[in-house]
Amino acid sequence: MAGRLYGIGLGPGDPELLTVKAVRLLKSCPVVAYFCKSGRRGNARVIADRWIPETCEELPLGYPLTTEIPFDHPDYVNTLAAFYEDAREQLAERLRRGQDVALIAEGDPLFYGSFMHLFIRLKDEFETEIVPGVTGMAGCAAAAHAPLTWGDDILRVLPGTLPYEALVEHLQQADAAVVMKLGKNFEKVRRAFAETGKLERAIYVERGAMPEQKVIALAEKDGDDAPYFSMILMPGQGRRP
Amino acid sequence: MAGRLYGIGLGPGDPELLTVKAVRLLKSCPVVAYFCKSGRRGNARVIADRWIPETCEELPLGYPLTTEIPFDHPDYVNTLAAFYEDAREQLAERLRRGQDVALIAEGDPLFYGSFMHLFIRLKDEFETEIVPGVTGMAGCAAAAHAPLTWGDDILRVLPGTLPYEALVEHLQQADAAVVMKLGKNFEKVRRAFAETGKLERAIYVERGAMPEQKVIALAEKDGDDAPYFSMILMPGQGRRP
Repeated sequence: MAGRLYGIGLGPGDPELLTVKAVRLLKSCPVVAYFCKSGRRGNARVIADRWIPETCEELPLGYPLTTEIPFDHPDYVNTLAAFYEDAREQLAERLRRGQDVALIAEGDPLFYGSFMHLFIRLKDEFETEIVPGVTGMAGCAAAAHAPLTWGDDILRVLPGTLPYEALVEHLQQADAAVVMKLGKNFEKVRRAFAETGKLERAIYVERGAMPEQKVIALAEKDGDDAPYFSMILMPGQGRRP
Repeated sequence: MAGRLYGIGLGPGDPELLTVKAVRLLKSCPVVAYFCKSGRRGNARVIADRWIPETCEELPLGYPLTTEIPFDHPDYVNTLAAFYEDAREQLAERLRRGQDVALIAEGDPLFYGSFMHLFIRLKDEFETEIVPGVTGMAGCAAAAHAPLTWGDDILRVLPGTLPYEALVEHLQQADAAVVMKLGKNFEKVRRAFAETGKLERAIYVERGAMPEQKVIALAEKDGDDAPYFSMILMPGQGRRP
């Protein structure tokens, strides 16, 4: 009988923010797989560290590239597609052998997660279960003590990769917003907040739910870029009796 | 020394989807407070049941009303404001006495949570810590095996209370969307999906992450309303190498 694929959300960074279910499954799965930058340990593996038994087979899936080539370049698409196919085959081999496999993901597996690229390649052949996780967004809001959405607020989750004009338009209309994928887009995103007069409402959170977490007003953030674990929150101002 | 207020997210409904941190704190807090409909046990209390010690003081906060009066009616605002002030005082009394208080919330405390109404009334007087939780949204996506956002998808979280025209406009423009607060708004929301030609992409999830969970195409849902624990997901179709 084939094994089962588990997509396991690890939450925003604090190892105590895994769910009870995630911990139970990590302790019993004979194989744990995770994405990482080639040659690095990987953020997911670090977050899950205390919960993975020594007897577990580890299957690191090292990205051949991350941001070196633009997303829309054919070389990016082809290289990534080949990488996902190869990763798929490594997982399928264990599953066919009857082993359960836990594919771990930072945050929630179905919310901008690389997990999804393997999920769509494996779900028709193998039984799959998704264990939802606390998103980075919720972790950062908690770190900032910032209620995100009230009453009938509409929330927009925006990738920092959007063109400047699109960012401005969304921020102009937004009740509440979260901007992810900052990196080298940080300076453009901050300009869009300034342009729409919403800079004062925006909070910058770096490594939320981790020991080194940093929460400051966006207006006070230095420099023109931001690390991987960072986002901007613009809390809503909806109904509060 | 005053006690500390913990805002604890309980996740979408499965008691195993509480975080390790939430469970640890529930086991040690001498007081647990929760919102409920007057005379009922309350959804939060049910989800947390197995994790609350018998020795814990329980503080049910019974809503004087829920949807009997429109949100924008002065009677609604005044009744709710008085209720939150009274609840605030009950919590403050324990905190001043030096007891830690866990205020539990379904999903994530800062994402459309009633927790926030007490948080803003207590945060300046007492030390507060927020424990983020798995949102109902992530729980429903997991139940539906539906990757929600890919690549540079923009996600819109829309309350079903929006006017029909606003729903249509948002759905027309949305890459990915989640519609919450269905209830008596369900029929209006379904019409907005049909109007924008996006009915076929929409998934209806009821009681996601609970034993009785139901996942069907929105087009196949019977009836004109939907229960409290339900939402509609329209997954994104973004970049997937």
